[in-house]
Amino acid sequence: MNETWKKYEEYMFKISAYELMLGTASFDAHTVAPKGGSEYRNERMAYISGELYTLSTSDELLQMLKELSEDESLDDDHRRIVRWHLKDMMRDRYIPKDFFVEYEKLVMDANVAWEKAKNENDYQIFKPYLLKIIEMKKQQLTYLPDGDKGYDVFLDDYEPGMTMAKYDEFFSLIKEKLVPVIKKIREREQIDDSFNYDYYPIDKQKELAELIMKYIDFDFDNGILSTTEHPFTHPLQKHDVRVTTHYYEHSLVSSIFSVIHECGHANYNHSIRDDLAETYVFDNISSGMHESQSRLFENYLARSYHFWDNLFEPMKQIFPEQLKNVTQKQFVDAVNKVECSLVRTDADELTYPLHILIRYEMEKGIFDGTIDLERLDEIWDEKYQEYLGIKAEKASQGILQDVHWSDGSFGYFPTYALGSGYAAQFVKAMSRDLDIDQCLANNEFKKIKDWLREKIHQYGGLYLPSEQIVIATGQPFDPHNYTDYLVEKYSKLYGLNEE
Amino acid sequence: MNETWKKYEEYMFKISAYELMLGTASFDAHTVAPKGGSEYRNERMAYISGELYTLSTSDELLQMLKELSEDESLDDDHRRIVRWHLKDMMRDRYIPKDFFVEYEKLVMDANVAWEKAKNENDYQIFKPYLLKIIEMKKQQLTYLPDGDKGYDVFLDDYEPGMTMAKYDEFFSLIKEKLVPVIKKIREREQIDDSFNYDYYPIDKQKELAELIMKYIDFDFDNGILSTTEHPFTHPLQKHDVRVTTHYYEHSLVSSIFSVIHECGHANYNHSIRDDLAETYVFDNISSGMHESQSRLFENYLARSYHFWDNLFEPMKQIFPEQLKNVTQKQFVDAVNKVECSLVRTDADELTYPLHILIRYEMEKGIFDGTIDLERLDEIWDEKYQEYLGIKAEKASQGILQDVHWSDGSFGYFPTYALGSGYAAQFVKAMSRDLDIDQCLANNEFKKIKDWLREKIHQYGGLYLPSEQIVIATGQPFDPHNYTDYLVEKYSKLYGLNEE
Repeated sequence: MNETWKKYEEYMFKISAYELMLGTASFDAHTVAPKGGSEYRNERMAYISGELYTLSTSDELLQMLKELSEDESLDDDHRRIVRWHLKDMMRDRYIPKDFFVEYEKLVMDANVAWEKAKNENDYQIFKPYLLKIIEMKKQQLTYLPDGDKGYDVFLDDYEPGMTMAKYDEFFSLIKEKLVPVIKKIREREQIDDSFNYDYYPIDKQKELAELIMKYIDFDFDNGILSTTEHPFTHPLQKHDVRVTTHYYEHSLVSSIFSVIHECGHANYNHSIRDDLAETYVFDNISSGMHESQSRLFENYLARSYHFWDNLFEPMKQIFPEQLKNVTQKQFVDAVNKVECSLVRTDADELTYPLHILIRYEMEKGIFDGTIDLERLDEIWDEKYQEYLGIKAEKASQGILQDVHWSDGSFGYFPTYALGSGYAAQFVKAMSRDLDIDQCLANNEFKKIKDWLREKIHQYGGLYLPSEQIVIATGQPFDPHNYTDYLVEKYSKLYGLNEE
Repeated sequence: MNETWKKYEEYMFKISAYELMLGTASFDAHTVAPKGGSEYRNERMAYISGELYTLSTSDELLQMLKELSEDESLDDDHRRIVRWHLKDMMRDRYIPKDFFVEYEKLVMDANVAWEKAKNENDYQIFKPYLLKIIEMKKQQLTYLPDGDKGYDVFLDDYEPGMTMAKYDEFFSLIKEKLVPVIKKIREREQIDDSFNYDYYPIDKQKELAELIMKYIDFDFDNGILSTTEHPFTHPLQKHDVRVTTHYYEHSLVSSIFSVIHECGHANYNHSIRDDLAETYVFDNISSGMHESQSRLFENYLARSYHFWDNLFEPMKQIFPEQLKNVTQKQFVDAVNKVECSLVRTDADELTYPLHILIRYEMEKGIFDGTIDLERLDEIWDEKYQEYLGIKAEKASQGILQDVHWSDGSFGYFPTYALGSGYAAQFVKAMSRDLDIDQCLANNEFKKIKDWLREKIHQYGGLYLPSEQIVIATGQPFDPHNYTDYLVEKYSKLYGLNEE
């Protein structure tokens, strides 16, 4: 290995040490840390973020990366690592350090305020933080050479190559294909999912979560499951990937599907090639690619009938009373029930992209100035009325439901829908190589994981999403795979073609 | 406030940020982190420890401290803060940074190995780490100007002012006064504590722990309870003090008393004066002083009859079957049962100092070279035979029972006995101001906490133990308070004076 690369690796070790400290402290803050400690903690985490910022935007590192980017002796993988690192670093270098540290402190405080606001159903607690975050995000754009592109800058941060123009096209197809189907379903007889609202003790739900995680072969030696207000996956390193969920005493399926969703994310980070695990591409996987894997697990696999062949009976043993009159078919039909509902994370597959569309339109409006920031909560409600025909009675089910804006993650939401779209194409390609239903029925989940690892996961963020999709499926991304899948699946479930 | 002090505070903010990161990562590693991640984690934590070492031993900081130590405009409290900080810093500055980082990495790895060894009852897994730690501790002495004092150096680290000469005298009184009492008790009829070995489900024990913590007014806004292999208290900052315990399905009292013990520690850190909370004296409380507060809660209060006046019935409601034939008196007698047993943390008050004596004698022997390091496990067993007349069947109940040597905490153990001694004197002084039994009976635990805060806790580590004892009790430390208390209490319980 050449000298500069060795120096680069040593430098990256230091960066990774700071990242691990901050990542661990952040996980701790979200899971166990007492509320009273947040002021002291956030001040110090912001300071350490500043130290990391200094290290990761230094002239020394820039010099190394430039040298490596011109080094023709590097192989393609190494050149890619350098390319993505250099690209991201250049963007960060434009931000003044003081601004960066102030922003880090703000989002940590905002997160505390958001959690309190959600628990107390009071948007006013969170509002000043949200407005300040928006102000700073706009300020951030003024530092960037391409800042005049506005929201497109943030879209590219989360999904390299994506723009408003492309998302507009994507969502326009979604609306065209799905809205009529949803409309028809609303006129049909509804699926009975009343069993889901029975009482499910949380310790029993935890037992079920563990059972499901074992079935999908979650790597417990190198990962854990915890509880948080908002479920997430936290990949600290290949050998420490953490997933969280939220349990509700009166919902069986909420935690089931968030656990499976997060395990889809975790599986990506667990399955990266060893020689890439400690490089830049461990953690630069695009959000759309990452969501494609979580949504693939959650929907394409876990909402299919055969996924439950080996789980349904054990689940009934955990909840014998609650599920005594429920068959596997009834259960699977129920978890596919289409319903215009308020909470994105509990939404069915078909209406889900409309939840995303609402957020996407709001974010666009926030950054092009067409939305009155004083009315964000009302606009949220109006859009739910417009697209889903319902209105939240509580802010915790309206604008406060998601953690993302408290993190300043503008540009992230659209990747959920896009990732669901990618997943459709991955599943179609996988079906050419594997009988997926058979794998599930035979308790051979590992075969599915092996396919995903070989085609996608092993590379981490080595390839652009557009390249990765071709590598895995042989075709560029085509969102019709997604809409076709949804229309076919739900037409069948609700007998829409039978008239 | 003068300029140098302001600069010093700013500098201390940076140090506290690194300490918080490492403290949080360490807590995470002990509680939730997956085993697979330890290699990656420990390498990086050791690196960050090195960064902290550089910061906290810098010439810049030394210059500031020297300047402040000569600044006559500072008040007594500030001068003390500077004095203790300077003293500790000088000791650290003699250690080469590379050595420091290597040692930090070693103890983290050793901790992982110890936990595995204990779980698998195999001392051989831990032995090479222990020997390496001992080697490095001896090496460390060679760097220090007073290193030729050997083990005395480490004793002073944990309890400023203490030496082998003083501990020898202390333990000699212990042996003289307590061994004859233990001998007599062994000939008496034993107290029945069989209910303790019934089945106590862990989730119910957790419920009980919370109940007890509420009774003793644990500050849940600024602290948490977690589960670990070895119970400990982790004071990250005044507003984030964490305690842990270990639950055994077939012991009710083990977790009860370790929870109360750790809450005694936590209460100390929670109760420091606000203007001292972010200074050096938050975390430099001597081990003996700290143990005095944990042992005071655990033994002097929680093993007394009236402590249970407001807890015994609620506890019976949690374990109605297991405790149905047990009265409050039987319960309190049982938790005071004297028994020569193997595990220090479960030992009764009377035999407890003998457990400490064994460790103290071993540590002395390790550092004066009179012990064959190849035979540490056997010597452990021989000493248990000698002092307590029993021998561990499993290494996990022998040399592997305690976490401390895996941390390299040589010199710590004796402070447990010393702290118990201090506690006797504190309780005697408290009794002059308060009717302790009355406070417990009336559910006025807060009065006890107030007394401790006013006399001790508010100061943190501002005073030397010898000074602090005089401040709180008006007298220098007299270990007869301890032996008198034990002899009187146990003579009464076992009717030794009735013959």
